[in-house]
Amino acid sequence: MTSSRPTAAARPGPISFRRRGPVLERAILDAALEQLSTVGWSGLTMEGVAAGARTGKAAVYRRWPSKEDLVADALRAGLPTLDEAPDRGGVREDLYEVCRRMRDAMLSGPGIALRSVLHECDVNAAERFQAVIVNGMIKPSTELFREVVARGVARGEVRPDALSGMVLDVIPAMMMYRTKVSGSEWPDDEIAQMIDQVMVPLFRS
Amino acid sequence: MTSSRPTAAARPGPISFRRRGPVLERAILDAALEQLSTVGWSGLTMEGVAAGARTGKAAVYRRWPSKEDLVADALRAGLPTLDEAPDRGGVREDLYEVCRRMRDAMLSGPGIALRSVLHECDVNAAERFQAVIVNGMIKPSTELFREVVARGVARGEVRPDALSGMVLDVIPAMMMYRTKVSGSEWPDDEIAQMIDQVMVPLFRS
Repeated sequence: MTSSRPTAAARPGPISFRRRGPVLERAILDAALEQLSTVGWSGLTMEGVAAGARTGKAAVYRRWPSKEDLVADALRAGLPTLDEAPDRGGVREDLYEVCRRMRDAMLSGPGIALRSVLHECDVNAAERFQAVIVNGMIKPSTELFREVVARGVARGEVRPDALSGMVLDVIPAMMMYRTKVSGSEWPDDEIAQMIDQVMVPLFRS
Repeated sequence: MTSSRPTAAARPGPISFRRRGPVLERAILDAALEQLSTVGWSGLTMEGVAAGARTGKAAVYRRWPSKEDLVADALRAGLPTLDEAPDRGGVREDLYEVCRRMRDAMLSGPGIALRSVLHECDVNAAERFQAVIVNGMIKPSTELFREVVARGVARGEVRPDALSGMVLDVIPAMMMYRTKVSGSEWPDDEIAQMIDQVMVPLFRS
């Protein structure tokens, strides 16, 4: 494959070697996140994203018919993954680790962008982004909590009925509540405090 | 005080007898809530509110310099009050009662309007309305929970450290979380479930 740089006088356009599939998509999603952090939802345009990814508008629209589709995917893809349940030998230590990962996701670039975007966008787009929070952050975290707690039940550390009903909602509920209402950024010691004051009494067999 | 109705041919204007102070303010705030429910934040205008309260624009602007000021006050004034802690003899029953009141506030006309308005308005106004949620709903509810739990500690039903730290945040956190994430409207049996699955183990001495 030969590649040649366009001359300075040529007008800007797609670079000469074609990126394909996942590589191009990755570039477009990264450009979308970059635009979000510089000009926000309102300033972001499909043209601007295409330019940032050094590709043409058509390549963007072909995969993402609308601004919401693009930004929702970019945020979802950008969030840290939350899928390996830690095993540090005790439910208290494991919960602490999962909470720290959830906090890190909420405070990541995409995590913060996700919350700003919710304020800037219209009601329809907001539903899409709420879904990203639920599917990209809350559900994966809750699954990790479930695994950790199930291990605790198996060890006899945790009462069996902790796995049913609403008990597992308490952790994400607390993390979202104090983030929203007190503006908490959940430093490690605050996470430890929540686990000791709330989760341990709640789960104790 | 004489009052005379304007004739059909006269142009609409303030009615002939002057309402003063609190009565006029009440009429204006009610008109604002009415406008919110019919045309929403975007459709609401100071002129429209004045007309709905059958007064002049000046009477509105004199007291509320901006649309946010007016709507924030209307919502705050419209929310059900949450200030008498029930005493039904046991912490479980008392918590149930306070949660039902908090649910009723969230699902009241103003409670629902408050959440819609947050989606429709710009970032600055959103801060004002977030403050109404905190000061008009969350803080008063949390105070009621505190009173109820303190009584439980005095009776020996509840462990003393339940009054410190984050434990009291769990109830409003759960109510807001499931409202937002599962769209729950907290029917009575769901409230009872939360109290039995979450609050009782958490508070038990």
